[in-house]
Amino acid sequence: MAAPRPLEFYFDFASPYGYLAACRIEQLAARHGRTVAWRPILLGAVFKVTGMIANMHQPLRGDYLRHDVVRFARLLGVPLTFPANMPMRSIAASRAVYWLEAEAPERARVLAAAIYHAHWAEGRNLDAPEAVAEVAAGLGINRTAVLHGIQQPAAKERLRQETDGAIARGVFGSPFIFVDGEPFWGADRLDQIDRWLATGGW
Amino acid sequence: MAAPRPLEFYFDFASPYGYLAACRIEQLAARHGRTVAWRPILLGAVFKVTGMIANMHQPLRGDYLRHDVVRFARLLGVPLTFPANMPMRSIAASRAVYWLEAEAPERARVLAAAIYHAHWAEGRNLDAPEAVAEVAAGLGINRTAVLHGIQQPAAKERLRQETDGAIARGVFGSPFIFVDGEPFWGADRLDQIDRWLATGGW
Repeated sequence: MAAPRPLEFYFDFASPYGYLAACRIEQLAARHGRTVAWRPILLGAVFKVTGMIANMHQPLRGDYLRHDVVRFARLLGVPLTFPANMPMRSIAASRAVYWLEAEAPERARVLAAAIYHAHWAEGRNLDAPEAVAEVAAGLGINRTAVLHGIQQPAAKERLRQETDGAIARGVFGSPFIFVDGEPFWGADRLDQIDRWLATGGW
Repeated sequence: MAAPRPLEFYFDFASPYGYLAACRIEQLAARHGRTVAWRPILLGAVFKVTGMIANMHQPLRGDYLRHDVVRFARLLGVPLTFPANMPMRSIAASRAVYWLEAEAPERARVLAAAIYHAHWAEGRNLDAPEAVAEVAAGLGINRTAVLHGIQQPAAKERLRQETDGAIARGVFGSPFIFVDGEPFWGADRLDQIDRWLATGGW
């Protein structure tokens, strides 16, 4: 029998709702014998297609988002500190994850979670490759190797492909999760995903 | 002791997520000894302030919405039929509700729920005042009185005021619910509202 497919977890590191989903998704997947494929993408490229702008920059909605994210994090019991730099420029962080995935897939997931934590739980500015390498170094990953990896054409190309592929699949926001091809948008769909996995759909 | 405040339920009849919330909110409120103030508004006026467009018209998101709304309705066990005319022109329906509210508040809530049901469960076109009056007639409300009421300056002014008031309070989408002043956006926040009412916040 074939192994069950991983949950495909698309997100932008700049997305606070992506962070909230990231805090729960591994445990949720594990409960159902699934793994998670972490897929950082650049929402900026998505917005060029949809003509939209980041939620946090929309009038009225931006104010609500700041309130809702804090309340949601408190409900989930996860730490949250708004970074001074929003939205984060997530290109270096995303490339670092894809570079590491080619080297050591398991560690790439840990790095992605650590980047999310550093940015959204600690409020650290991770725009610069050096700041991303610092997070990686905290996990025992060689700093110089990370800085080199971020610059590799393969990592850049992979990020472009994943972002284009996400758009082609209909991804318009973060987090966006496919469960056996079924699309779910938003941190507030994780309870539905839990039920979907438990019941095989409804 | 003062009576607990009603849940303030802002929605546009053209909004399918508003319909999903409408199917649950009275029962939810009653569980906590609350009532619901139904507040139809015109999202078109909201979008002029926010610069946004209806979700169902956004590239990629519109396709997802059609899928998600169907799946969500199935999960809740409520009927759904996409109307041929989307988005509905909700001005007549909204004015009818405010006209009736001034006459008989309790019946206005029943009419609002019936309009939502006719449009989103049965897929009926309710753009025209005559179609709204038809729904009202099904509840025993005089058809001619409804058509007359829709044209009253007071009903028109009330709809304008409620829409402007909603924008002033930060409402940018539908459904949007205030619980003792605490804002919640989206049909997917009803579980959080349930918890908020049970715990007095978290």
